[in-house]
Amino acid sequence: MSVHDEPTLNKETIYEGKIIDVELHEVKLPNGKTSMRELVKHPGAVAVIGITDEEKIPLVRQFRKATEEMLLEIPAGKREKGEEPKTTAERELQEETGYKAAHMHEIAQFYTSPGFADELVSVYLAVGLQAGMPRTEADEFLSVEEWTLNDAGAALREGRLRDAKTAFAIQALLLR
Amino acid sequence: MSVHDEPTLNKETIYEGKIIDVELHEVKLPNGKTSMRELVKHPGAVAVIGITDEEKIPLVRQFRKATEEMLLEIPAGKREKGEEPKTTAERELQEETGYKAAHMHEIAQFYTSPGFADELVSVYLAVGLQAGMPRTEADEFLSVEEWTLNDAGAALREGRLRDAKTAFAIQALLLR
Repeated sequence: MSVHDEPTLNKETIYEGKIIDVELHEVKLPNGKTSMRELVKHPGAVAVIGITDEEKIPLVRQFRKATEEMLLEIPAGKREKGEEPKTTAERELQEETGYKAAHMHEIAQFYTSPGFADELVSVYLAVGLQAGMPRTEADEFLSVEEWTLNDAGAALREGRLRDAKTAFAIQALLLR
Repeated sequence: MSVHDEPTLNKETIYEGKIIDVELHEVKLPNGKTSMRELVKHPGAVAVIGITDEEKIPLVRQFRKATEEMLLEIPAGKREKGEEPKTTAERELQEETGYKAAHMHEIAQFYTSPGFADELVSVYLAVGLQAGMPRTEADEFLSVEEWTLNDAGAALREGRLRDAKTAFAIQALLLR
C-alpha cells in the first residue's frame, strides 16, 4: 500500500482544556468514504531516566487520577510553549528529584497512543547527577525512590512497573 | 510519602464518543485544596508481537490521523466489551496480518499516558504463526511488513520506530 493520509473535511472542537484539547474530525478515507476520528491534542512531554554515581535510578511515586492508582515513574512533565524540551527535562528532573545533571541527551521519542492522541514523549538519559533539594510545585504530591537497574528490571518483568515511558526507559538501560 | 488518592468532588462529562470519553473532575488534594483533572477514558488495548518461523516480526504500517503520519506498529486494537483480551489479541493479529498463533501469552501491561488517560495496553507474544489471509475491516487501510529483530532494533535506535507499544515490544524481544 502506498503512503496516504486522511484529509480533514470537517472539524469540531469539543473541548479546550489546560492540558488537552479534544477534536472531532470527519476525514476522507483512501476509498473515498468518510469516517470520524476522535483526537486528543497534547503539547507533548519529556521524561528523564537518570543514573546516580551510586548507579541508582531516581523514580517518582505519585497518585494518577486517570488510572486511580499510585504509579512509579521516571521524572516527567509536559512540554512548555517556547521552552526547549531539554530545558524542560532538566527542570522537571530538578523539581521532582532535586538532581541536577552534568550531561543529558535524548535517547528516544515516541507517541504514547497514536490511535487517538498526538502526545509525543522525548526520553532523556541524565548522568553526572548532583543531589539537591526537590522543589515540587505546591499542588504536586510525590515521593522519590532510588532503585538499582537490577531491581527495576525485576519489577518490570513482574508487572510492578506499569507506566509505558518508564518501562521503555528501563529496558533501554538494560540493553546498553 | 504515604499512599493517597484524589477523591472526586464534582465531575462533568465533556464528551462521550465511540472510542474515548472525556471527563473533567474536581478533586480533593492531600493538602485539602482542590484541583481540576482532565481525564480521557479509553476501553484499553491489546498489542501483539509475533515471531514467524523465519524469525520475522509482522508489523503494520498505517496512517494515524492523531499524529498526521504513517506509523509502523505491531498489530493492535482496542479491547471489546465482554471479550477476553487474549481473544481480542488473537483476532487482531489474524485480521491485520493473517497469522494465527499456536501460542500466545501476555508479556506486559502498561498505561500509555497515565497523566491524562486510563488506557491500559496488554502486550502479547505470539509464536507458532501459521500464515493466512488478512481480513481487514472495510475502512482499515494498512500494509503488513515483516522485519528481522535486528532490523527492528536498528530502526528503534535510529528513531524510525515512533510508537510506544512497538518500541517496548521490540526491546522486550531484544532482552530475551
